[in-house]
Amino acid sequence: MLGLKVMADSAPWITYRPGLKVLDCTIRDGGLINNHQFSDKLVRAVYETCVAAGIDYMEVGYKASPKQFSRSDFGPWKFCDEGVLNKLFSDHDEEKTGLKLTIMADAGKCDWREQIVPRQESKLAMIRVAFYAHQVSEAVQMIEHCHGLGYETCANLMAISTITDVEIDTVLAEIAKTHAEVMVIVDSFGNLYREQVDRLYARYSGAMAGTGKEIGMHAHNNMQLAFANTIEAIILGANRVDATMGGLGRGAGNCPMELLLGFLRNPKFKLRPVFGLLQDHIEPLKSTVEWGPFVQYNITGQMNLHPRHAIQFRATKEKDDYVKFYDQVGSDV
Amino acid sequence: MLGLKVMADSAPWITYRPGLKVLDCTIRDGGLINNHQFSDKLVRAVYETCVAAGIDYMEVGYKASPKQFSRSDFGPWKFCDEGVLNKLFSDHDEEKTGLKLTIMADAGKCDWREQIVPRQESKLAMIRVAFYAHQVSEAVQMIEHCHGLGYETCANLMAISTITDVEIDTVLAEIAKTHAEVMVIVDSFGNLYREQVDRLYARYSGAMAGTGKEIGMHAHNNMQLAFANTIEAIILGANRVDATMGGLGRGAGNCPMELLLGFLRNPKFKLRPVFGLLQDHIEPLKSTVEWGPFVQYNITGQMNLHPRHAIQFRATKEKDDYVKFYDQVGSDV
Repeated sequence: MLGLKVMADSAPWITYRPGLKVLDCTIRDGGLINNHQFSDKLVRAVYETCVAAGIDYMEVGYKASPKQFSRSDFGPWKFCDEGVLNKLFSDHDEEKTGLKLTIMADAGKCDWREQIVPRQESKLAMIRVAFYAHQVSEAVQMIEHCHGLGYETCANLMAISTITDVEIDTVLAEIAKTHAEVMVIVDSFGNLYREQVDRLYARYSGAMAGTGKEIGMHAHNNMQLAFANTIEAIILGANRVDATMGGLGRGAGNCPMELLLGFLRNPKFKLRPVFGLLQDHIEPLKSTVEWGPFVQYNITGQMNLHPRHAIQFRATKEKDDYVKFYDQVGSDV
Repeated sequence: MLGLKVMADSAPWITYRPGLKVLDCTIRDGGLINNHQFSDKLVRAVYETCVAAGIDYMEVGYKASPKQFSRSDFGPWKFCDEGVLNKLFSDHDEEKTGLKLTIMADAGKCDWREQIVPRQESKLAMIRVAFYAHQVSEAVQMIEHCHGLGYETCANLMAISTITDVEIDTVLAEIAKTHAEVMVIVDSFGNLYREQVDRLYARYSGAMAGTGKEIGMHAHNNMQLAFANTIEAIILGANRVDATMGGLGRGAGNCPMELLLGFLRNPKFKLRPVFGLLQDHIEPLKSTVEWGPFVQYNITGQMNLHPRHAIQFRATKEKDDYVKFYDQVGSDV
């Protein structure tokens, strides 16, 4: 990869674009499977792999409100208290490692005025604000608040396959006015085909034109298209892309880091440490949790449904009854 | 899907192209895992699913030379004797079912003058001729021979990621002169990214311009791109696409039929029977054979290597040692 001209006679897929940055969200998105109950050892292993692999950002979890979510039900990476970050990443050095730490703050689920401290007091470098279209006003406040505290900020509008173009445009116009450095295309339901990615990219980049903001891509793998849609966004010009180790993530999972780094040609990215992490830490997780493009996720992706339907069904004894699930979602939802 | 204009304001992914035909090669490609030792029951179940799902072609196996391949080592779908076909598909009615049966004949591995009988004496409607670039002269003879016997014919140039553009062009020029109805882009090593599919499609369709031939796509899933690359070829204009039930196929497997049919919008295609086949017949195969985009196939795909290296490694006790495999193929091959 990766040029902007698709049919160039030269081979854009064997050169690289220096401005393209990779974000690992293994712990943040993967934690949606297990209520963020990862061991320190695992989180630290992912961190060390990110450093060794040359990854640009690592998202270590959410800053969820402890008033809304019980600390006995959820692990530390749901809350990302500064004390927890200071302990596990005590030796973290942004400059030496080239890695920046980030968390996600959900509109409506984060006590952001209290939970987010000034950047110079935190291990974090960026706050990613996730929100649904109707929450855009709070998202703007959150972005500006975090920007004021010194952080890089990023706007993640979720569930875009369920809202109209005019709603998307309204959100984009609001985000364009903020200090957010990045606007991310988020395919929450794993529902997008290539032509839809193209159309959304044009919409997002058009709305951000002249602001200097980058476009990001966060894909889900319901239809085995997370990697392909990420490639597509990159070809179009996206310079911020999300991936997870082994594709770990809720439901069908995410764009696999091992595929993404294999595609990128920036010599700073290294695959070998990722394979080490996969065999030592990620594969073993499969004995307790599951993720991947199973048939039920194919179906919810095709039908543009929240993966929760598939997650619930796969937790039952009938999990291998594909026809039953197909009939159920076809008539019930 | 699927229009030809990517950025059309209308939504091409919710309409359909009537000329697009789907070929199921579950038994033919899947048989490479188990020496084509499928039971009659399984083959018949795939056949009935193809009929119920509205699939256009079913490829039931190879016509491999019994002089080169032992009948005790390989099952009946390696040879596809007319007697075997007549027995299992005794009731087959092309017109009533809308399904045509096909086999693959490999240049250099098929006694085609003896093994292929006139079409009116056979259940088969099409012969797909598979060949490497250096075998193109025999492939042309085979195509013309089969055409003379009354069959539709199809040219499948394999391993294109290992040959030069001038070699591809030479082959295409020879095939353009034949009676083959279809020229298939075959990504044997699962090595192609989107931009490469675009470039090959332009090359193939340019060479076939004015001949009335269709372009086909046969993708492998080493990098989780089989479905995406098939979509890409379709957007560009490919009207013949290959898929397998559950993605069953050698190594990483193929484009999954359940994803492809979910993408196509031709109302004649039905997904429900495919899900039934998957749960009753394909999933149970996983207790004896494996296929899918495992890490070793990611690596051979990225490195443009034949999947045999990965297949051999995954048959050893060290199959979960990804780093060892990565180091091995990086230095040995």
